[in-house]
Amino acid sequence: MVDEVVLLDFWASMFATRVRVALAEKGVKYENREEDLWNKSSLLLQMNPVHKKIPVLIHNGKPICESLIIVQYVDEVWRDKAPLLPSDPYQRARSRFWADFIDKKLYVASRKIWGTKGEEQEAGKKEFIEALKRLEGELGDKPYFEGESFGFLDIALISFYSWFYAYETFGNFSTEAECPKLIEWAKRCMQRESVSKSLADPKKVYESVTSWVGL
Amino acid sequence: MVDEVVLLDFWASMFATRVRVALAEKGVKYENREEDLWNKSSLLLQMNPVHKKIPVLIHNGKPICESLIIVQYVDEVWRDKAPLLPSDPYQRARSRFWADFIDKKLYVASRKIWGTKGEEQEAGKKEFIEALKRLEGELGDKPYFEGESFGFLDIALISFYSWFYAYETFGNFSTEAECPKLIEWAKRCMQRESVSKSLADPKKVYESVTSWVGL
Repeated sequence: MVDEVVLLDFWASMFATRVRVALAEKGVKYENREEDLWNKSSLLLQMNPVHKKIPVLIHNGKPICESLIIVQYVDEVWRDKAPLLPSDPYQRARSRFWADFIDKKLYVASRKIWGTKGEEQEAGKKEFIEALKRLEGELGDKPYFEGESFGFLDIALISFYSWFYAYETFGNFSTEAECPKLIEWAKRCMQRESVSKSLADPKKVYESVTSWVGL
Repeated sequence: MVDEVVLLDFWASMFATRVRVALAEKGVKYENREEDLWNKSSLLLQMNPVHKKIPVLIHNGKPICESLIIVQYVDEVWRDKAPLLPSDPYQRARSRFWADFIDKKLYVASRKIWGTKGEEQEAGKKEFIEALKRLEGELGDKPYFEGESFGFLDIALISFYSWFYAYETFGNFSTEAECPKLIEWAKRCMQRESVSKSLADPKKVYESVTSWVGL
């Protein structure tokens, strides 16, 4: 049986980007359906009735929701190529911990940078840089987060890289000045076709964010 | 080498309870260290510098944090007994999805029931019951969430059962009247020694919550 794989997607979403990168790493062919998030399709509402959010991966008719859960699913189903999670249980736990940290701390801080102003924006900027510095500490001198090979935590974080230009422009700071090693890592990731072809254009993200906040 | 396993715990925490149940299911012996959350130990701050929260499992000196990540770690390390996550990738993804739903929706709603008053409390109660009904739908007519055997999602939810008496008393409602099948499931879980010996006494939880909110 040929697998039928459909991704309910939105081009600028860092969460959807994670799934695109994971599928590209595994060489899985899929149909991409771009959602209009201001007018969601009945398919999206039917496939993710709980959260009504993209991304949703529909594999042979069955929906899988929540980006980090989808990436783990992709890793478990297409296991013969490009393992994403480390094999050691402790390293797996660490990767899951930092991916969860990205969603709980980095994402929340990042929204404040472009979605608020004044003191709240300043607080968001501070939290964002602090979170990045923690992640840079976890990276250390390794080429990728899990060591020599690109994996789960790299995917969880690199998906935000498309948004860095928007964060920096709204927040008036330089990520490279704050976290040079992390930017080296991001550039290393961008040399992979799975990443460069999956990430949105930073300028286009910035222009869209600008229009969303009505500037 | 004998494993050295230490749990940084707090008796009433549903998150710590998950780890207690998982370790009991696996038959892992461990040292339990009760934390004073109002005066956290230097060990806790050292082992979980990011979130500074219990539970932390310290396995041979290495810390693992965040309850659902710890339960998966326990399942992966002590894999010869009582498998907790289903073996099928799709069922694994579903279990992870609903466990994440518990933390994102059920927990947040539950805090409003005892932590707020008036309209916000009413909203919390409504969200809590809606979330439980969704979970009851996912349970269906199965004995446990993953089917015939007790597992990951059962652990994720049963840890809240100690708090039901407090929620019901603060919110003036009956979970059994709203979700009778879910209460049958909870009573089934309570017949397991791993659960009954790990869950806090509901009356003691209620009394403590009452003192925390200063009633």
